[in-house]
Amino acid sequence: MTDAVSDRTIDEVVNALKYNDDGIIPAISQQHDTGEVLMMAWMNKDSVAETLKTGRVCYWSRSRQKLWRKGESSGQVQTLKEFRWDCDADTLLLQVHQEGVACHTGRRNCFFLAVRNDAIEEIAEVEIDPDELYG
Amino acid sequence: MTDAVSDRTIDEVVNALKYNDDGIIPAISQQHDTGEVLMMAWMNKDSVAETLKTGRVCYWSRSRQKLWRKGESSGQVQTLKEFRWDCDADTLLLQVHQEGVACHTGRRNCFFLAVRNDAIEEIAEVEIDPDELYG
Repeated sequence: MTDAVSDRTIDEVVNALKYNDDGIIPAISQQHDTGEVLMMAWMNKDSVAETLKTGRVCYWSRSRQKLWRKGESSGQVQTLKEFRWDCDADTLLLQVHQEGVACHTGRRNCFFLAVRNDAIEEIAEVEIDPDELYG
Repeated sequence: MTDAVSDRTIDEVVNALKYNDDGIIPAISQQHDTGEVLMMAWMNKDSVAETLKTGRVCYWSRSRQKLWRKGESSGQVQTLKEFRWDCDADTLLLQVHQEGVACHTGRRNCFFLAVRNDAIEEIAEVEIDPDELYG
């Protein structure tokens, strides 16, 4: 994020988005310069506002029911490059710079399972030992 | 999709995925050769199976509560190149070839709203008049 976003614009964005019955919206993150889709997680109004305010991506953890500042325990932070959303205003697409790896398994992105050769295959290697990330 | 997927593998995939309380899973589609994120929609077990079987992307329409064969009314079909999913098995990432435009507004992809210059901006042009797509 090169430019600061004012509280007025943050309010405008928070109110433009449509949240589901749990008050959250899915957020896809994409490495801004390579196009690699890194992960999909969820945001609530507070995490949308914090992300726009700080330029550091903050999700809403459904399992822990709290703000999840990506990388706060692992160091693998996401810096916001551009905040986008779709025609229905019910899905976000975040252009980010991912420090290190996005996936808790230590892989660069979370989408490492695929159908290939009529079988389920793992198509990406672990780059950082998860023990190193969370140990 | 270059290779056929057997019923056995389709069953394996359908059962490997985790669906939400409504029996559906979010599916991101990405243009396979450019990395452009096109849209996000939802699939149920039947649409996952049909997509793998036919190589044409079929979603589940939440508003119409029926299978949604992408492009069936607009002609803007998605051909499956690779079927991927994530570490939690609760999000799909489809590598596709998108015929024409993915968005019902006539834009190439659905994510055309962005925060730029401390304001909400439209960052993509309409390429095909929606009246042409659905008229």
